[in-house]
Amino acid sequence: MIKTCMDNVREKAPLVHNITNYVTVNDVANVLLACGGSPIMSDEPDDVEDITSICVGLNINIGTLNKRSIESMFLAGKKSKALGHVLLLDPVGAGASKLRTETAVKILDELKPDVIRGNISEIKTLALGSGTTRGVDADVADAVTESTLDNAVAFAKNFAAKTDSIIAITGAIDLVADAENCYVIRNGRAEMGRITGTGCQLSGMMTAFLAANPENKLAAAAAAVCAMGLAGEIGWSHMAEGDGNSTYRNRIIDAIFNMDGETLKRGAKYEVR
Amino acid sequence: MIKTCMDNVREKAPLVHNITNYVTVNDVANVLLACGGSPIMSDEPDDVEDITSICVGLNINIGTLNKRSIESMFLAGKKSKALGHVLLLDPVGAGASKLRTETAVKILDELKPDVIRGNISEIKTLALGSGTTRGVDADVADAVTESTLDNAVAFAKNFAAKTDSIIAITGAIDLVADAENCYVIRNGRAEMGRITGTGCQLSGMMTAFLAANPENKLAAAAAAVCAMGLAGEIGWSHMAEGDGNSTYRNRIIDAIFNMDGETLKRGAKYEVR
Amino acid sequence: MIKTCMDNVREKAPLVHNITNYVTVNDVANVLLACGGSPIMSDEPDDVEDITSICVGLNINIGTLNKRSIESMFLAGKKSKALGHVLLLDPVGAGASKLRTETAVKILDELKPDVIRGNISEIKTLALGSGTTRGVDADVADAVTESTLDNAVAFAKNFAAKTDSIIAITGAIDLVADAENCYVIRNGRAEMGRITGTGCQLSGMMTAFLAANPENKLAAAAAAVCAMGLAGEIGWSHMAEGDGNSTYRNRIIDAIFNMDGETLKRGAKYEVR
Repeated sequence: MIKTCMDNVREKAPLVHNITNYVTVNDVANVLLACGGSPIMSDEPDDVEDITSICVGLNINIGTLNKRSIESMFLAGKKSKALGHVLLLDPVGAGASKLRTETAVKILDELKPDVIRGNISEIKTLALGSGTTRGVDADVADAVTESTLDNAVAFAKNFAAKTDSIIAITGAIDLVADAENCYVIRNGRAEMGRITGTGCQLSGMMTAFLAANPENKLAAAAAAVCAMGLAGEIGWSHMAEGDGNSTYRNRIIDAIFNMDGETLKRGAKYEVR
Repeated sequence: MIKTCMDNVREKAPLVHNITNYVTVNDVANVLLACGGSPIMSDEPDDVEDITSICVGLNINIGTLNKRSIESMFLAGKKSKALGHVLLLDPVGAGASKLRTETAVKILDELKPDVIRGNISEIKTLALGSGTTRGVDADVADAVTESTLDNAVAFAKNFAAKTDSIIAITGAIDLVADAENCYVIRNGRAEMGRITGTGCQLSGMMTAFLAANPENKLAAAAAAVCAMGLAGEIGWSHMAEGDGNSTYRNRIIDAIFNMDGETLKRGAKYEVR
Repeated sequence: MIKTCMDNVREKAPLVHNITNYVTVNDVANVLLACGGSPIMSDEPDDVEDITSICVGLNINIGTLNKRSIESMFLAGKKSKALGHVLLLDPVGAGASKLRTETAVKILDELKPDVIRGNISEIKTLALGSGTTRGVDADVADAVTESTLDNAVAFAKNFAAKTDSIIAITGAIDLVADAENCYVIRNGRAEMGRITGTGCQLSGMMTAFLAANPENKLAAAAAAVCAMGLAGEIGWSHMAEGDGNSTYRNRIIDAIFNMDGETLKRGAKYEVR
């Protein structure tokens, strides 16, 4: 299934509309191309409905939201839903500001994304109305570890049931849950946190994976998480003396570029609970 | 001539004002520095006239246009024309949305760019009022191939005559035409399409080439296309195992950085029809 | 002291709010992560006060300013000052347009930054109300050289005394001055000017250095300049045949990633006048 999910992206080349932050947007575009998808960016209210209409998925990331882009998120989101496209929400910094929290909650309520992908602080903010977000990185107290895993899996499933969305919580251990099943994924490396945008990249790529696998959205979301984590492992294995986070950024996207479904299947480390 | 065009960029170091999309803007800046030019970015209506006044060329790219930047495109464009600067239009996604098509057509009509650089879908949209743009990448049915070449050359010359602009259509085979002559260029590699922004980079660099060669704009535009394509070939020759599109992006800009006029002259593959 | 300044950044991991240009923002984020800090970006008036409140420093860069982001600069700046955070101004292009000059002067007057970092043209514009800014790069006539050094040091100290800010002027020789002392720094390489954004990166990193060393702001600012220059030297030493400015960009950030306080101490080349 994981293998098929990736093969389908390469075969179908889904065109993904991204309303995303300007910090990591170039990496999001390149990772979408690397995995076999195709990116387009547009955040002007007068433009987004046309653009999203020619796509098959919409990736909404609130990392550098502003009043104009928020308006565009809702216009594009409604059009995208009306057309039956895949919709992903990446609630960057939810909990860190009133505007981010309220925007993310409103998107959740009004647009009902197929999948919400964030770190544990952001997801807890949406689920519990609290959370202790420290900027865009997850608060340590919230980390999903082996000792908190049972609770975290239950939390993810409950929130998935409540929202009818797939909930993807990424961190040291990644969780991808619907109401019934939760993929617990142990790919990736801690050093990925030393690069800006691996989360944003994953959100873009995950949108492509879901769009190419509409009948298997949960597995597709999990496959995207495995692919990103595995790319982090493969990329790290190519690091040479003197290399740092900037080279690592390139190596991760390169690893996605060179990854096929078979490689992903062999390298994916997950269990379903 | 091709050699001289590149040497002149390195000698004159043209300062280019870019109103461009936020997806590939960093690469546009770095490729301008790589080829010997100098970039400046500004898209605020209150700022663009001053900024364009200290430059020698203006690169307008509508890849992530919005109401504010559109206003800036016209303010900067009119000032730039009044000062006799070079003006390039990159109609990213023309045909993909009403706003993009209308904005590109209006720029064409009101600002009369020295050169229009796009893929065949975008250029056909401007020329024929139709086209079948698939996002920001060219539709396959529109591709310039050996079998469609005669028609494509005639189309490019006709559109150049109609607009009094140089028409640069990039793809597997690149065309750079005025009303009388068309450079048919066979540099480049298909893998360049797996990186975001090689087209945007070319537009930035082409603006610098024209600004440094005001007496030979057609040859300068063709030289920029050859340089980008040759950089794609040289960059690819430096790819090692495990490298992918992210590393390739760096390698292409690096190849421009290291290219001199003599190397370009030897590597350029073109005929004039 | 230089060593301690860097060690403190890695130990305290300061969260820095950046209102910066979209050209180099990704590199600013990655260099902040490389040096041990943590970046967050926000430029929406309704968002910036909340965001800056969870940070310890604010980096204001006017490289692609617009009316919205200017409003955000003042809202965030006032909040940041009220909370006792570190505030840095990078007056990109001051002197190149009326809007840039006026905005930078107004920030200087109303927000009283802890440190102003720019090239000599930009700083002279702020100090003298003139300057001859050529785009975002310093005018050659203004260059700080061995022959103009005494005057330049006096100028920097005087402007520091007048503004009660630390003045950081970067170029072939870098100066970091308060009213009493001026670090004269000879790290770095000329090739750093062939990459976009080394100045912006330095501003982001310098904000983190000051935030982590509130009792030693002058030394912290100087340490950041030494670190960036040393990274330029180390990065260059890793360049291989065929590498150019794009790879060099990665190598510089990589060098920051791998640099510890001890390495910085050994490699820093400075005198205090």
